[in-house]
Amino acid sequence: MREGLLSPVVVLVNPQMGENIGATARAMKNFGLDDLRLVAPRDGWPNLQAVAMASGADSILEKAQVFDTFAQAVSDCHRLYATTARSRDLRKQTFTPASAVQICLRDTDKTIRSCFVFGAERAGLDNDVIALCHGIIHIPTSPDFWSLNLAQSVLLVGYEWFQATHDTGKNPDALTNKSTQRRENHLNGEAEPASHQDMMGFFDHLESALDTKGFFFPPHKKPSMVRNLRTLFLQNPLTAQEIRTLRGVVRALSRDGEGE
Amino acid sequence: MREGLLSPVVVLVNPQMGENIGATARAMKNFGLDDLRLVAPRDGWPNLQAVAMASGADSILEKAQVFDTFAQAVSDCHRLYATTARSRDLRKQTFTPASAVQICLRDTDKTIRSCFVFGAERAGLDNDVIALCHGIIHIPTSPDFWSLNLAQSVLLVGYEWFQATHDTGKNPDALTNKSTQRRENHLNGEAEPASHQDMMGFFDHLESALDTKGFFFPPHKKPSMVRNLRTLFLQNPLTAQEIRTLRGVVRALSRDGEGE
Repeated sequence: MREGLLSPVVVLVNPQMGENIGATARAMKNFGLDDLRLVAPRDGWPNLQAVAMASGADSILEKAQVFDTFAQAVSDCHRLYATTARSRDLRKQTFTPASAVQICLRDTDKTIRSCFVFGAERAGLDNDVIALCHGIIHIPTSPDFWSLNLAQSVLLVGYEWFQATHDTGKNPDALTNKSTQRRENHLNGEAEPASHQDMMGFFDHLESALDTKGFFFPPHKKPSMVRNLRTLFLQNPLTAQEIRTLRGVVRALSRDGEGE
Repeated sequence: MREGLLSPVVVLVNPQMGENIGATARAMKNFGLDDLRLVAPRDGWPNLQAVAMASGADSILEKAQVFDTFAQAVSDCHRLYATTARSRDLRKQTFTPASAVQICLRDTDKTIRSCFVFGAERAGLDNDVIALCHGIIHIPTSPDFWSLNLAQSVLLVGYEWFQATHDTGKNPDALTNKSTQRRENHLNGEAEPASHQDMMGFFDHLESALDTKGFFFPPHKKPSMVRNLRTLFLQNPLTAQEIRTLRGVVRALSRDGEGE
């Protein structure tokens, strides 16, 4: 693997069975991923079933971090990918595992931390979490039979990550397209990427300012209005500077009266 | 999938636990493989554990054929690939799953039947069986932790087969197309793209609202501040609806006092 790469984070949101957490640790270790984070695991933590299943990958469980909320778990991550087996009707850029790791790799190389987000066993990820992610990884399967278990999904994403970062003879062609170019320009100089925490700070600021002004009307539509707004600003990765600019805009606009 | 392709065969040699056979059937069905053959399964056949585990992929178990010997199981196959997680010191051509499916695909196109061969859970394939195969599929894993279970190995090979035979957008070039595609879908139906006029209407609205609130300070920096803001919103093509949303945001925020 190239020097200095930030290894992507694997986040399990509300995982249920310990066995699946243990199997996830094994799948991660198979492919050199080691940063596991759990959001409110159903059966608490530590979990004996997880340890029993992880045999050989215990080190990953020992280092695993547990958080109460998704926002805490990903606060230091910059690029979030929600993994889904079903197609969702959300306006998000959708990647295959292979194309997502190419993008991650291009980004992580520049000290951007990527994060693969997996939902609970049956329910998957809820739309509010997906709305906070920059993209969706859709694992291509037969449309007749798309159900994959949690550890299998992690395995397939990890497999692609490993291949993209090691010379396995698979030949991942370097991406040289316009969007790479734009990204590189964008990332030059002072352009530190916005972290999830930066994004959430902006969303909190914007949404509470809008709330004060009665924007979310009728009230029962607020959740979907919030999701649409977040999606709009997450379509394209923003820099920390751009987020500061947007917060300045919100602050200025919500000021009462005219400026001095 | 292309017409007239012979679907590759999956052969399990001396599989032990029924659960693993059932999980293999599921992995095959995820990726459109349906020809499962078992060589002398340890616990006989049919196997209740296999059926319990295969839920949803029962059809593959029902059609599965059982043979006494490896030679019988593969008698109608033309190209045999032995799958191993460990590297073996055998003089065989070794493929990644991705490169093996490319070769299979080239061959099956010529009505040659390919076959992926998997060994028993712990022992793997014995060298005599490997010696009968045309090539070895070595699944690239971390050298520290190469152990994959049977169904996981089938899953990874099946995944590559599926991607090679379906347009899943795996090819990085296809990625651009796909994301363009998504964007175009996105822009279909109600999602009319924002015109330049829409964008300029939004910029005029935003900038004059900001002007009223004294945002552009010091005044000589206004031109570059305006350029930066415009750049931020132009990075990603927005829809006309998104522009209406943003104008609603600006309108709400710049309202004096609290909303009704």
